Amino acid sequence: MFNFNEQILLQDKNNDILTIGEILIDMISEDYDDNFECQTYNRFFGGSPSNIAINTKKLGINSLVASAVGADGLGDYLKNQLRNVHIDTRCIQTVDYSTSMVVVTKSKFTPVPIFFRGADYQIEYTSMLEDAIKNSKVIHFSCWPISMPLSRRTIEKSIDTARENNGLVCFDPNYHPMLWQKGEDGIEYVKSFIGKADIVKPSEVDAERIFGQDHYENQVEKFLELGAKLVIMTLGQDGAIVSNGKEMVNFHTLATEVMDTTGAGDAFWSGFYTAIVKGHTIKEALELGFAVSAFKLRYTGAVVELPKLEEIKEIYSL
Amino acid sequence: MFNFNEQILLQDKNNDILTIGEILIDMISEDYDDNFECQTYNRFFGGSPSNIAINTKKLGINSLVASAVGADGLGDYLKNQLRNVHIDTRCIQTVDYSTSMVVVTKSKFTPVPIFFRGADYQIEYTSMLEDAIKNSKVIHFSCWPISMPLSRRTIEKSIDTARENNGLVCFDPNYHPMLWQKGEDGIEYVKSFIGKADIVKPSEVDAERIFGQDHYENQVEKFLELGAKLVIMTLGQDGAIVSNGKEMVNFHTLATEVMDTTGAGDAFWSGFYTAIVKGHTIKEALELGFAVSAFKLRYTGAVVELPKLEEIKEIYSL
Repeated sequence: MFNFNEQILLQDKNNDILTIGEILIDMISEDYDDNFECQTYNRFFGGSPSNIAINTKKLGINSLVASAVGADGLGDYLKNQLRNVHIDTRCIQTVDYSTSMVVVTKSKFTPVPIFFRGADYQIEYTSMLEDAIKNSKVIHFSCWPISMPLSRRTIEKSIDTARENNGLVCFDPNYHPMLWQKGEDGIEYVKSFIGKADIVKPSEVDAERIFGQDHYENQVEKFLELGAKLVIMTLGQDGAIVSNGKEMVNFHTLATEVMDTTGAGDAFWSGFYTAIVKGHTIKEALELGFAVSAFKLRYTGAVVELPKLEEIKEIYSL
Repeated sequence: MFNFNEQILLQDKNNDILTIGEILIDMISEDYDDNFECQTYNRFFGGSPSNIAINTKKLGINSLVASAVGADGLGDYLKNQLRNVHIDTRCIQTVDYSTSMVVVTKSKFTPVPIFFRGADYQIEYTSMLEDAIKNSKVIHFSCWPISMPLSRRTIEKSIDTARENNGLVCFDPNYHPMLWQKGEDGIEYVKSFIGKADIVKPSEVDAERIFGQDHYENQVEKFLELGAKLVIMTLGQDGAIVSNGKEMVNFHTLATEVMDTTGAGDAFWSGFYTAIVKGHTIKEALELGFAVSAFKLRYTGAVVELPKLEEIKEIYSL
């Protein structure tokens, strides 16, 4: 049981956080456009777990990301972006498929991504990955790798290893039906992984995709019933509701200026993790998650220049 | 046996040419760049069989293209490009996979494409496709659909139907190892399809990929031995050597100005087909193929504004 006013005690290890999941190219239209009529696209570093690895590194803790890229120029670009912020790429596997890509048009409404998945779901459970898991305090994974059989087995083994080695297991249930193979019930898989995690952070949209429409409090209860120990449900402008199974607490967003919402959820996770690793209580870590998210919202792009967590604390008087 | 100084007698049908194969997005870097360091990419209409359908329509005959796109904005864009030149899209199937894409950087050396295949190889043998085959004088297909089991079966059935209905069957053996599934011997499949075609047009690079290095004349013989009746081997700046199994003839390129080589092979096919349909002899059609290719080479892009074949004849005094 996690108490809001207590730290999460993490076992001392070399690495702070290991994220496992997609690393990919975001190919984003230059102009706002709702149906791919735009001709020009810009290539960006992307993939939620990879964004979190970069953010947490910038905020001041050690991070690693485990994923797979193709033996192509786009894969080289992604690895170089990690090296530029001094993240070791030893857990980025190179496989015989194209580097994954998402093409999306900038939209004032709801952007509709087109997924081109190749390398990302070819990630295997290697001895290099096993070592990284054993040596990491926090293990974070997303829905992408659990959507395909090979990478799902990799995640299952990774969770077992993390458990055996007292790692904190966190899951982003960012379910998207387009990621799953035709005929597979992705929602059932997502539900089964919720029970394997200590902490889950669904957005209201994730919750609705998984459970259908319901009141926020009921949605949080459903995640708890599946076995998650701490449920952080983010509600966009309305902050978040968080439950440890005993108490349900509301949090307010700290955002005052919103330039671009891309990557705001990753920024939240990043602030939360960095604070947890640095020994803050859960309540403080949640507030610091909102602070980092608010900072990110002032800038365009999924990955922005973040200062150290201590500076974020000062800016938001936390 | 095809005689160089004779027409190819085609049965009278509603449609002149049906191309079957890939329709896709070419995402091409804005700047010259050999390793995907460029950030900005432009989206173009692409896929060799689709380029040929557009070119032949512009040159003055009726064309159709059979392929598959995703139910996404990129698929809509491709269909709209066909409609813009008044090509019926009834043979463009919409499937539950992302529209296929090739990402490539403009290169002064050898561009290295990254393939993101989704919808294109999901093409099925439908009654709509069957009707189109029965009603087309010429059936053209590329290597892309034969590289995957479902679309390979579609091509096999399409060839059978074309044969039963006296269609002229033409094959572009543009073999590329990256298109094939790991563990499959693509070259053996390509060889088996060469024997099913009346006309094949390998480039020197295709021939080397399929048979290894050898003298041009020997390469042409190998295609003939596999069963092709007319082999047109294009040699870039050196023109082409062509054999009907009895006579081997050299042709010179008509290009004087080279702005961009992309799509030059498709332009050749397009001029050749248009001329054949319009009743020119094989020799004349080959010369008109070179004329259209020379015209294309003066402009950038795979698909350029082509005039009617009669105007091309005048420009090149043929």
